[in-house]
Amino acid sequence: MLILSNDDAEQLLTMPDCIAALEEAYREQASEQAVNAQRSDVVTSTQRPDAVYSLKLMGAVIRGLGVGVVRLNSDIISFANKRQVKIPLAPGNRYTGLVLLFSVDTGEPLAIFPDGVVQRMRVGATSALGAKYLARGDARTVAVIGAGWQAGGHVMAIAALRELEEIRCYSPTREKLESFCSGMSRHTGVKVRPAASAEEAVRGADIVLCATNASQHVFLERWFAPGMHVCTIRGPELEPAVVKQADLVVVHDRSVHESAHVTRGVTVPANRHAIPGFDMSVAPSLPELVAGTSPGRASAHQKTCFVNLPGTGLQFAAVGAAFYRKARAAGLGRELPTEWFTEDVVP
Amino acid sequence: MLILSNDDAEQLLTMPDCIAALEEAYREQASEQAVNAQRSDVVTSTQRPDAVYSLKLMGAVIRGLGVGVVRLNSDIISFANKRQVKIPLAPGNRYTGLVLLFSVDTGEPLAIFPDGVVQRMRVGATSALGAKYLARGDARTVAVIGAGWQAGGHVMAIAALRELEEIRCYSPTREKLESFCSGMSRHTGVKVRPAASAEEAVRGADIVLCATNASQHVFLERWFAPGMHVCTIRGPELEPAVVKQADLVVVHDRSVHESAHVTRGVTVPANRHAIPGFDMSVAPSLPELVAGTSPGRASAHQKTCFVNLPGTGLQFAAVGAAFYRKARAAGLGRELPTEWFTEDVVP
Repeated sequence: MLILSNDDAEQLLTMPDCIAALEEAYREQASEQAVNAQRSDVVTSTQRPDAVYSLKLMGAVIRGLGVGVVRLNSDIISFANKRQVKIPLAPGNRYTGLVLLFSVDTGEPLAIFPDGVVQRMRVGATSALGAKYLARGDARTVAVIGAGWQAGGHVMAIAALRELEEIRCYSPTREKLESFCSGMSRHTGVKVRPAASAEEAVRGADIVLCATNASQHVFLERWFAPGMHVCTIRGPELEPAVVKQADLVVVHDRSVHESAHVTRGVTVPANRHAIPGFDMSVAPSLPELVAGTSPGRASAHQKTCFVNLPGTGLQFAAVGAAFYRKARAAGLGRELPTEWFTEDVVP
Repeated sequence: MLILSNDDAEQLLTMPDCIAALEEAYREQASEQAVNAQRSDVVTSTQRPDAVYSLKLMGAVIRGLGVGVVRLNSDIISFANKRQVKIPLAPGNRYTGLVLLFSVDTGEPLAIFPDGVVQRMRVGATSALGAKYLARGDARTVAVIGAGWQAGGHVMAIAALRELEEIRCYSPTREKLESFCSGMSRHTGVKVRPAASAEEAVRGADIVLCATNASQHVFLERWFAPGMHVCTIRGPELEPAVVKQADLVVVHDRSVHESAHVTRGVTVPANRHAIPGFDMSVAPSLPELVAGTSPGRASAHQKTCFVNLPGTGLQFAAVGAAFYRKARAAGLGRELPTEWFTEDVVP
């Protein structure tokens, strides 16, 4: 049984790995050879009046990759200032999110690792896959809204997917934005430049990737030009009229229904997946696009939209399996006795 | 972060510990200070034609005990001969079932341990709690149907709950039954004797505990005498007329709805929780009994029935918290760096 780290993931996992693993996983999901567990959130009060404790569970099995996965988050979440912020209260000011990978053939645990790097890569890689099927074939300019952790993953993913002319980024804090752009230019080899406003970033862009933690709209209806492809990772990012106006809207997954179980007296934020007036449960999904059972973009003039929500266990199974294979091949990770995590009594 | 073992659990955990922890947890659940996650099973085909892979997820948070829990099982299950049998295919012919315990106050992982011993103790302790509220106050004779792993937990639990005259056990394999009874007599200090038949075991018994892996009825309607309390841990154990005839039927939990997600082409067995004609979703539950919001036994003549189904994450949180506290106090377990299981990036 391997204990792997975020550093191992940074060192080993590439965006092309993640995009390839996810594309295969979605194809298996569409043919019902891979399946997500129910997702469940449990929320209770804590000793801090402004924060809740949240335990989040996801899971999936991908037969073809031979893996089952559990991804869990054990978070203290503050809702001060109307923003959800995770507070790192574990020793050393750290967060707790874990991925556990299992063998479908023997049941045994294969690896345990923190979810952070894999989490970011799967979100960006999935947004890139959406663009692969929904953006124009000649798309060369990209706008990224955001200059944080998720935005970085999106820049890396879209740069790995396509030959690009330029990526224009926008975020309100100028200094952070400039440092983000120069770092990303170096990292990807693509010209990544700061824009003066969100509107300037998206004007003339073929692909717009919203990758923020925002609880307000960052992409407005009037910016949505013919031929453009827009992607969101949080419901509030898009003005609701954007999805109404789109010729084609695809969601990440329709099979996963979240259930939240909440103890009395806690305040839970609005569903960050909801887009007012848009029924995610009847939209075509990415697995259907990948499998070809739902049509992608039909013309150069269509406005397309990818709602990269909700996250699924399948993503962690696919990217986690690729990570595990590469770690084994490279001899990375801490080996612990598998028998510490198995048993001789029938559970 | 502690790695604990089944041996540690055998050494440290007592039935009175488990019964007390569960009673407190049910009280918190009734007042909505503790809550279960959705339970989810994912099932796919395997390389073996007669077996499936099953990934089972449970979770819960108990505010008062300060713990969140995830319990998972990664099993290869054979359905040969119409019986569900887990096949130990992990290295060393072992099974994979794990409990992960987290702090509600910091989010950090506290312990990881195999689920086997805790799993058995929580089932037996819960059946004993059912008997505490539903059996007659003067109940002194007990029948246990079964002589396996779960039956052992039930003998230990009921012996810990009450001063008993005699426990009579029945199981079809005589040699196994006799060895079970002599072992349990030594272990509990109560007279545990083998019965010649299930009917002989239950005749005149005040409490009947069915604790088998049976897919056929082991307790029949015509044996259900006035004043008797009957408990089951598997739907098929009871002739369905037993629950119809009972004056009072209480279920373990109504809050947990299982969801099964299955890939194409796998054969999944019938729901082992179902009792034909009995709607578990409207029955009173053990947390309500413990909290006093549903009435227990009302007279010495009532026939009462406890359907100790379905299992919940809450049980693992309660018993797991007690186990962790005792292990810390005793200095048992393998200490691993908590930072292997936490991270400095926001997941």
